[in-house]
Amino acid sequence: MTPPPSDSPVGTLHILGVGPGDPELVTLRAARILGQAPAHAFFAKRGRTGHARSIAAPHLNPAAEELRFEYPYTTELSVEDSRYAEGMAAFYDSCAATLAGRLAAGQDVALLCEGDPFLYGSAMYLFDRLRPRFPVEVTPGITAMSGCWSRALAPMVHGDDILSVLPATMPAEELAAALGRCDAAVVMKLGRNLPKLRAVLDALGLTARALYAERGTMPGEVILPLAERDDSPAPYFSLVLVPGRQGAR
Amino acid sequence: MTPPPSDSPVGTLHILGVGPGDPELVTLRAARILGQAPAHAFFAKRGRTGHARSIAAPHLNPAAEELRFEYPYTTELSVEDSRYAEGMAAFYDSCAATLAGRLAAGQDVALLCEGDPFLYGSAMYLFDRLRPRFPVEVTPGITAMSGCWSRALAPMVHGDDILSVLPATMPAEELAAALGRCDAAVVMKLGRNLPKLRAVLDALGLTARALYAERGTMPGEVILPLAERDDSPAPYFSLVLVPGRQGAR
Ligand SMILES: C[S@@+](CC[C@H](N)C(=O)[O-])C[C@H]1O[C@@H](n2cnc3c(N)ncnc32)[C@H](O)[C@@H]1O
Ligand SMILES: C[S@@+](CC[C@H](N)C(=O)[O-])C[C@H]1O[C@@H](n2cnc3c(N)ncnc32)[C@H](O)[C@@H]1O
Repeated sequence: MTPPPSDSPVGTLHILGVGPGDPELVTLRAARILGQAPAHAFFAKRGRTGHARSIAAPHLNPAAEELRFEYPYTTELSVEDSRYAEGMAAFYDSCAATLAGRLAAGQDVALLCEGDPFLYGSAMYLFDRLRPRFPVEVTPGITAMSGCWSRALAPMVHGDDILSVLPATMPAEELAAALGRCDAAVVMKLGRNLPKLRAVLDALGLTARALYAERGTMPGEVILPLAERDDSPAPYFSLVLVPGRQGAR
Repeated sequence: MTPPPSDSPVGTLHILGVGPGDPELVTLRAARILGQAPAHAFFAKRGRTGHARSIAAPHLNPAAEELRFEYPYTTELSVEDSRYAEGMAAFYDSCAATLAGRLAAGQDVALLCEGDPFLYGSAMYLFDRLRPRFPVEVTPGITAMSGCWSRALAPMVHGDDILSVLPATMPAEELAAALGRCDAAVVMKLGRNLPKLRAVLDALGLTARALYAERGTMPGEVILPLAERDDSPAPYFSLVLVPGRQGAR
């Protein structure tokens, strides 16, 4: 890769975690960069504002250019369909090309990410594409799980506990193997998987300890014992917490 | 427990995560509470400032009362010694009694915690003791692992990856079982356990992917491939990252 001529320095890509929902759970560093960046970018579903964009709203430089990256699919194509992977790769290529244009012109860009960028974040796909060519700085964010267990007042991981974080999308046997081997767990991406997850937790004797958290730290937050949650599909912003065994008192 | 008479409202215990080290990685919420609280409390080792106290320093209300909780042991007693558990329980009892005095008098207190309070944090022992009697609010913090993987520019957890977080203190066979079953891992509390951890990672073919991070986000930060780190004891502020397999591009 030819380095850019020194009289036209490239911009820096700032990948910013903006936390789980409450705009006050943004870090001072992310708020500073959001207030300064001449351009910011974010992912959004069709017809939606974009969660990271909403969280960041109070902190954004009002004069900044706004780059909206709209996911090409909502539910029309199954994730298993090979066209899905191809379509997503093309989508991320085009997002990266848009950012590369700004960066090559010497402009800094802030890419907004819900929670922490490197924990199940789409920003990783743009990082992979742009890192070889441009300076990148990553600002960690409060994760959805930390936001939820803080609001639930549920101490999670003690002493020598093992914490596992996993998606509810995996097959029941794999879920059971993973949940059977840890002391504390966080299960993300619930969707239609609550009945499957509940059966696994029941078999392991963990249901009584489990909590359901929806829209943690946001308006409309719901926190319940999992036993009181029905099996209807869970909204996107939801997860299950299994607090660890207590340490020595 | 008799509720306090309504003409003398009790104070709120604010358990505040202050992040991994960089004072700019404090949240806006934690900074606001630190600036307002009439008293703050923190743990410290004998002869030390206290890590959470140092991180919070730029944000503290200068007029606040300062409560320093000094750990009774450094290394004189082994963790296996039953007097250790008793001594620690008595220590937490006395810290809780100090806080209870302020709270019962109607004063809010901020308890400072490195990283996130509910992930391997000592604050959980005070939470357990005070939660039955006083209102408690928990502010999540950036975890040490998020701080380290952001600084390492290491995307950690993709798609359907399982992340495990565990202490290096467990026996080699348990470490191997836990690390063999996840896609991405964070190993905390390294101390004298690097040779054991390295042997386990070698056997699983994971050493080439592993990173060593020391004092992440702080002055004196060190980030290295684990393969380039020798086996001398690791300082307190260090962990090992094993980034997950990459997702679809
Ligand atoms: C693509 S992952 C992104 C995770 C994010 N990067 C983080 O650090 O937490 C999306 C998942 O995060 C969880 N999630 C995000 N925000 C949440 C919230 N406010 N309350 C509950 N769960 C949330 C849900 O489980 C959702 O399926
Ligand atoms: C008692 S645990 C506290 C963890 C903290 N509550 C969190 O959320 O990250 C202490 C461990 O955190 C890790 N740690 C804390 N700060 C760190 C830093 N700045 N860099 C690397 N590791 C750190 C070390 O592994 C250490 O053994």
